[in-house]
Amino acid sequence: MTRNTSTLKNYLDARREDINKALKLFLPAPPYCPPSLATAMSYSLESGGKRLRPILCLASAEAVAERETPGSRKNARALALPAACAIELIHTYSLIHDDLPAMDNDTLRRGRPTLHVVTSEGMAILAGDGLLTEAFGLITREPQSSDSVIVNRKLLTIGVIAKAAGATGMVGGQAMDLASVTSETNELPQPKLDSDELQKMHEQKTGALISGAASAGAIMAGADEETTSAIKTAATQMGLAFQIVDDILDVEGSSENLGKTAGKDAVTGKPTYPALYGVKTSRQMANHCIEHAEATLQSINLSDARLLEIGHWIIERTL
Amino acid sequence: MTRNTSTLKNYLDARREDINKALKLFLPAPPYCPPSLATAMSYSLESGGKRLRPILCLASAEAVAERETPGSRKNARALALPAACAIELIHTYSLIHDDLPAMDNDTLRRGRPTLHVVTSEGMAILAGDGLLTEAFGLITREPQSSDSVIVNRKLLTIGVIAKAAGATGMVGGQAMDLASVTSETNELPQPKLDSDELQKMHEQKTGALISGAASAGAIMAGADEETTSAIKTAATQMGLAFQIVDDILDVEGSSENLGKTAGKDAVTGKPTYPALYGVKTSRQMANHCIEHAEATLQSINLSDARLLEIGHWIIERTL
Repeated sequence: MTRNTSTLKNYLDARREDINKALKLFLPAPPYCPPSLATAMSYSLESGGKRLRPILCLASAEAVAERETPGSRKNARALALPAACAIELIHTYSLIHDDLPAMDNDTLRRGRPTLHVVTSEGMAILAGDGLLTEAFGLITREPQSSDSVIVNRKLLTIGVIAKAAGATGMVGGQAMDLASVTSETNELPQPKLDSDELQKMHEQKTGALISGAASAGAIMAGADEETTSAIKTAATQMGLAFQIVDDILDVEGSSENLGKTAGKDAVTGKPTYPALYGVKTSRQMANHCIEHAEATLQSINLSDARLLEIGHWIIERTL
Repeated sequence: MTRNTSTLKNYLDARREDINKALKLFLPAPPYCPPSLATAMSYSLESGGKRLRPILCLASAEAVAERETPGSRKNARALALPAACAIELIHTYSLIHDDLPAMDNDTLRRGRPTLHVVTSEGMAILAGDGLLTEAFGLITREPQSSDSVIVNRKLLTIGVIAKAAGATGMVGGQAMDLASVTSETNELPQPKLDSDELQKMHEQKTGALISGAASAGAIMAGADEETTSAIKTAATQMGLAFQIVDDILDVEGSSENLGKTAGKDAVTGKPTYPALYGVKTSRQMANHCIEHAEATLQSINLSDARLLEIGHWIIERTL
């Protein structure tokens, strides 16, 4: 496949703008919500993330819709946009809570001081709680429709997202991660996970929400179970590739470029792919994941260029 | 109305047992969820709360169903049980996060050390996040039904609960509370809320989830909008009475009886009803709230004994 980098960039920019506009519209604001809380939620949400997860959600909805009805891309995006935003709210809450002193204790995120640094730990906890709760409320409200088909898709979507984000998904992975670096002594903690456990941890901590995003988009666009399942499989591979690249960037990048504290994984004894396999093999593993994802999508005739290109964006990104 | 205390006690005990059994069944367990996280979530959930909110949810469903179809009490409870459990998951998560050092810094809750004391702050944050997320997932799954009427009620219920628990509800109230006791000096903080602001804060922090519980039960039992609205109004009054009594117990009770640190509100400069109005007037206010709630329920012919008696339980409780 010949890829057109400039077209991909235009697509990503346009979707990012859709998402950023919708997030502003969907988030509760004063006087219905205390100004301090609204400001805290917005601070983290508006700090310019890649928006990978919501874009994947939209691209997945487009791919499903285009296969069934060519020309229905825009309509599918409108159907999936609230779910895409809900997933970004959840991703953002998870970053806020992960950055807390009781967790990763990070002071820099997306190039800015983390939320608890500019407000307080208490407000950062509440802002995270608020974002997570609003995510589910948003899907019930938007898009407004009393059509039983849409109502059913919304309920399925909430179920998929809750599973991806919950105790058997993202929060579960975070708990495994927390346990793996918790040391009973004051010495530097050592990784306690072997390679299988590392993969399982990442599948839950990062992969589950990424594959949940793709599944949610598919469901909102009306995908049948077989299609949703294949998209989930492909997105799981994309999520794994994303995590491997993230680990590599932590080794190779500078804090300035990353927008977060570089080299932190090694210092905290966090288990990473480069630490277990070396950088070269890790990169091959990431490429292999994306090839696997492509093959899965092609097997169900879902070779929509946007969806495939997002896979390449994941492994080729430098930030 | 003549009340039968022993019958009420039997009812509360039976519903508490229903709820406790269902909670065990509904909560994710190993191997799907890391053991450390499952243990943390269960620790707080199984520490013997009053289960006021889920019982109110069930009683509300019963009242609605009995008015329409006498004898349908049990069926209505089965329909509302997952929502009732979801509300208890959310209530429990809110207690875990409120107790954290960055928030109220409480070490005793329901007579036992708080979760962050027996595990770690990080695990307590994650257990709260997990409970909140699982709450929404649970309603999508249970009761299992593809009937579009039930699917629609579930989606409405998720929307009502998310609103009650989110940034314009419970989390918003907690943010107001946090701001009211945050002091820029190291001296004892002073209350910064006047009486109107105190009531608004409590309506959001405590009242919203209590009225959300009653509304959720009504919706799952098929209430029309007028009925749900009246139940919400009545439960808002019950929630306010509950908070006033809670404040009074904090002044009058011992830590041993309360199961949490007594007298803490005064020490932390937290605004309370007894501090603003004195104990006697506060008690009269609580009674007035319950009378108002009864009148509202009677106005729509919803005088189900259980629902009314829960109001009396709220103001007469000593714990």
